[in-house]
Amino acid sequence: MNTNTKPKPIAITMGDPAGIGPEIIARLYRDHDAALQNTVVYGDAAVMRRACELVGVSSQAIQVIQAGEPFGVALLPAYGHVSGVAGLAAAKAVEASTHAALRGEVSAIVTAPLHKEALALAGVPYPGHTEMLQAMCAQHVGIAPLDMPVRMMLANDELRVVLVSIHVPLREALDSLSNDGVLSTIQMTHDFLERTGIANPRIAVAGINPHAGEGGLFGREEVDIIAPAVQAAKLRGIKASGPFSPDTIFMRARKTAVQDEFDVVIAMYHDQGLIPVKYLGLDAGVNVTLGLPIIRTSPDHGTAFDMAGTKKADPRGLLYALQKAREFATQ
Amino acid sequence: MNTNTKPKPIAITMGDPAGIGPEIIARLYRDHDAALQNTVVYGDAAVMRRACELVGVSSQAIQVIQAGEPFGVALLPAYGHVSGVAGLAAAKAVEASTHAALRGEVSAIVTAPLHKEALALAGVPYPGHTEMLQAMCAQHVGIAPLDMPVRMMLANDELRVVLVSIHVPLREALDSLSNDGVLSTIQMTHDFLERTGIANPRIAVAGINPHAGEGGLFGREEVDIIAPAVQAAKLRGIKASGPFSPDTIFMRARKTAVQDEFDVVIAMYHDQGLIPVKYLGLDAGVNVTLGLPIIRTSPDHGTAFDMAGTKKADPRGLLYALQKAREFATQ
Repeated sequence: MNTNTKPKPIAITMGDPAGIGPEIIARLYRDHDAALQNTVVYGDAAVMRRACELVGVSSQAIQVIQAGEPFGVALLPAYGHVSGVAGLAAAKAVEASTHAALRGEVSAIVTAPLHKEALALAGVPYPGHTEMLQAMCAQHVGIAPLDMPVRMMLANDELRVVLVSIHVPLREALDSLSNDGVLSTIQMTHDFLERTGIANPRIAVAGINPHAGEGGLFGREEVDIIAPAVQAAKLRGIKASGPFSPDTIFMRARKTAVQDEFDVVIAMYHDQGLIPVKYLGLDAGVNVTLGLPIIRTSPDHGTAFDMAGTKKADPRGLLYALQKAREFATQ
Repeated sequence: MNTNTKPKPIAITMGDPAGIGPEIIARLYRDHDAALQNTVVYGDAAVMRRACELVGVSSQAIQVIQAGEPFGVALLPAYGHVSGVAGLAAAKAVEASTHAALRGEVSAIVTAPLHKEALALAGVPYPGHTEMLQAMCAQHVGIAPLDMPVRMMLANDELRVVLVSIHVPLREALDSLSNDGVLSTIQMTHDFLERTGIANPRIAVAGINPHAGEGGLFGREEVDIIAPAVQAAKLRGIKASGPFSPDTIFMRARKTAVQDEFDVVIAMYHDQGLIPVKYLGLDAGVNVTLGLPIIRTSPDHGTAFDMAGTKKADPRGLLYALQKAREFATQ
């Protein structure tokens, strides 16, 4: 096989076997044959077979790379049930696909949702994908995880946001806010967008206090931390601006038929960025991890345990994540 | 005049004379004659005359109640220019209309935007309308402002949010979060919505940490403060639920053709509630102050100094605020 003529496949991880992950993957193979060309699923063969039966597609359609100990059919985790065994199987799939990406066997990984509690029950010491991928990639390179800073980017068709901090208490997000953290987020965002086809991206930086602090009246973080980071980014030639009032900058950054002011907003904490990016619904939202040596995307939704096994789950988020991964991988 | 047959007028305050307030008021009188029936403007006669000339409507169409020292025509504040004299004139209009409402001469007040810096230059010791109205109403009743708790509600056609805290640094919003503060916000929201026509409103309460803290993993405020307040509200017979993950509860609370799960979301801090309510644009957003003995609404936008005097300002937000005030006043 000549890798110049046939691009490497994209890996899709099955996600938590008790959630909607396997089922929405199977639905994509059933309904979006063309988009699924040259993809492989990392996970458990029995889990994926069950999902194929559920949605009525031949399991022959899917190439499954077994990750970890295979489930016996009788031992398959029940839909909607949190368990360590399911959490471990999901984590194994992420691990195997990440190693495949690091070895250059796949061009990108697209991850179906994990369940945080199931991960914890399995003894996996990371709250989610982002932290797990960071640790694995850092280990592969031979450095400490902290030396491989990563950032979460969320995007849909009208808005991109990159988060300075993610799964920490809001108070810790405030305490840990630093010039370096904001500046490196701006830099990583700039680099990723340039690399994936947006020349000289227009980066809006949000404040953290109401009205971006009104010049220090409602908080000093903008004056002391954020504005200097924006200035430093500008000195590097990056098209950064702000800090802007958080309550209107996301609205201003929407890309619509009549509006196109910014390419991305840097959000100072998890909910500041995720509230607007999720506001219009989760159908076509993608989560991208910046800072890794591999390309990783995922849909912007969770395991939806309440809906798993009912055939009602919507695969559009996963399809969007796959399309984005392919787009990034071919830049 | 028999007050049983003719309802009391609604007061509209002119806002900062250098901003878009006077101009959008004049446009409403020009274009929405019917909606403006039985309204009076509190402000400065010369300022309103200039606005009428700008948009081409007879100043006879508007009944102006002079509030404070009248401007000479040569001394009118320039559009887009921050000044204490403009800030003071705007504050005087709010003061006069509030006293009129407290005396029962008007049924509600609708306030055009103030400029915070101009207020400060005028020596007005409040960051915005909400705090100013609280102080004036408390003084009228003869109590301390702190004994008249107020809350800001923002609403548009698909989402209502009520904020536990407003113009304070984010850190202070965290530090001051209390069971009492959340519970009283729920109660005030319940009371206001019941009074204005929504029986037994469905109140969603947001968390404050990512994923509402994931059971204490990312912060304790949900476990220690918010959940007990929701429980206490339920014991009072209020249809409250939560705390919900902040990144999805606003999306879930949108009222659309296919979705109608909650009537209102209680947001723990300014931007948590204002980011989603402003995300789709400012045309039809209204700000309502809960807890006052008077009805007060305002549009959800600012003075737009960059646009003042250009005739480009959009009066729809003010019209919406006026319609809502009339609706609340007649319940």
